[in-house]
Amino acid sequence: MNEVLTLQQLQTWLNDTPFHQFMGMEITDFDLEKKTVSLRLPFRPEFERMPGSGQLHGGIMSSLIDVAGDFALVSLLKIPIPTINFRVDYLKMGVNTDLIAIATVRRAGRSVGVADVDVYNSDKELLAIGRGCYSTRST
Amino acid sequence: MNEVLTLQQLQTWLNDTPFHQFMGMEITDFDLEKKTVSLRLPFRPEFERMPGSGQLHGGIMSSLIDVAGDFALVSLLKIPIPTINFRVDYLKMGVNTDLIAIATVRRAGRSVGVADVDVYNSDKELLAIGRGCYSTRST
Amino acid sequence: MNEVLTLQQLQTWLNDTPFHQFMGMEITDFDLEKKTVSLRLPFRPEFERMPGSGQLHGGIMSSLIDVAGDFALVSLLKIPIPTINFRVDYLKMGVNTDLIAIATVRRAGRSVGVADVDVYNSDKELLAIGRGCYSTRST
Amino acid sequence: MNEVLTLQQLQTWLNDTPFHQFMGMEITDFDLEKKTVSLRLPFRPEFERMPGSGQLHGGIMSSLIDVAGDFALVSLLKIPIPTINFRVDYLKMGVNTDLIAIATVRRAGRSVGVADVDVYNSDKELLAIGRGCYSTRST
Repeated sequence: MNEVLTLQQLQTWLNDTPFHQFMGMEITDFDLEKKTVSLRLPFRPEFERMPGSGQLHGGIMSSLIDVAGDFALVSLLKIPIPTINFRVDYLKMGVNTDLIAIATVRRAGRSVGVADVDVYNSDKELLAIGRGCYSTRST
Repeated sequence: MNEVLTLQQLQTWLNDTPFHQFMGMEITDFDLEKKTVSLRLPFRPEFERMPGSGQLHGGIMSSLIDVAGDFALVSLLKIPIPTINFRVDYLKMGVNTDLIAIATVRRAGRSVGVADVDVYNSDKELLAIGRGCYSTRST
Repeated sequence: MNEVLTLQQLQTWLNDTPFHQFMGMEITDFDLEKKTVSLRLPFRPEFERMPGSGQLHGGIMSSLIDVAGDFALVSLLKIPIPTINFRVDYLKMGVNTDLIAIATVRRAGRSVGVADVDVYNSDKELLAIGRGCYSTRST
Repeated sequence: MNEVLTLQQLQTWLNDTPFHQFMGMEITDFDLEKKTVSLRLPFRPEFERMPGSGQLHGGIMSSLIDVAGDFALVSLLKIPIPTINFRVDYLKMGVNTDLIAIATVRRAGRSVGVADVDVYNSDKELLAIGRGCYSTRST
């Protein structure tokens, strides 16, 4: 694909997946030189750990991490990229906040790619960090 | 808590969390001697990777793994157990299937617990494996 | 390779690597049906955390885990298998003991393999668990 | 401990451990504001994958990652810090080179700390990345 990648194109690819729409994930930015992609996930009461607590369940952050790392590689390689495995470390509780995930490609090899993802609350405090390994071999 | 733990009690604890209900997770079994807990997550079109494909998004499985490992420790310790970190490895695509997660406690220490989780489709084929580390210190 | 795999052949492959000899790793058993390989690493004072403590440094166990998972896949596929990534969880301190690692293949796919490794002391107490992801594509 | 931390003090703590000396690890730098510690591991033929290849075995890098992440937290907290778990991703083969590990603390909480470690060859090419979780509770 020789055409210039646009944010709209990435958003279209993201929205092609029902699960991304179910969660409400949005791509807000990307940078091919820095190899980063930013996603936003707006707060919803369905994401809470306890009703009315505003505390976000970890499963929200881990799903966001998986997808953000994936799209950092998708923005570079412009093919579907299955996840091989990933790890998430929870650092701080997210409370009553949208989530911002910034994913950075650490390696985009012929068969394997690796991306790091930092998840922030709306005050730019770090809540969770993830590292994913993805299959980059177009088949 | 000296009372005998019942499946109904575990289910009540699971359902206390809006995110678990949002996803549709159910506890189906537990065994205090084997230190296992089983969860089921029924298929929904919102979980798909591509519309109409029936292919389950990885984020579904990773959320299920996080919660299943957590409840394996909850069943033993009967306190809320925050996740410290976890890893998931995807082995096989899940297609048009409910998910069954079987979580086993590998260690329940004073400050840290570790649980392994195997995720199967309804044909008992292994789809994903997870390993979580949890904070077991009651505070 | 159509010939029957022998323990001696696996040991030869293991010993081809100077680092394995430097550490003193030995293959003691394998089972192609269970997809397991067992390694032993005899205690040495150079492996200690503190002089005279007998406490084994974690780096010893993580190296053993990486190699054991690798050889579980090597025994099945009979090709060199590079590690993509792995995780180790330390459960219990090893003290004045040889280490026994039992590695089990969880998946041996066309491009990616996954193996689990349990590390025991000589009293068969579980000290550490590892999970590795390996590149199985012969090139 | 109110005294100013010196590089010499960190090196002394590192050298207290026989395994670190066995491998030949050295602390070369630290920065309390950036929360980083740098380690160096000189090349040795015993670290090779195949004799005469110059290719470094992955177990060398994983051990270095575990220790580097640990000492990033030790430099901040000035107590012994046991590893809970860690993950390493191998990105590029190291050949005939010393290794440089730069560890950065991502979180230093009351009970858990997390550190990221990048491992470079002497040409400053990234070879491996690690992420460790450590027990920071002084007991």
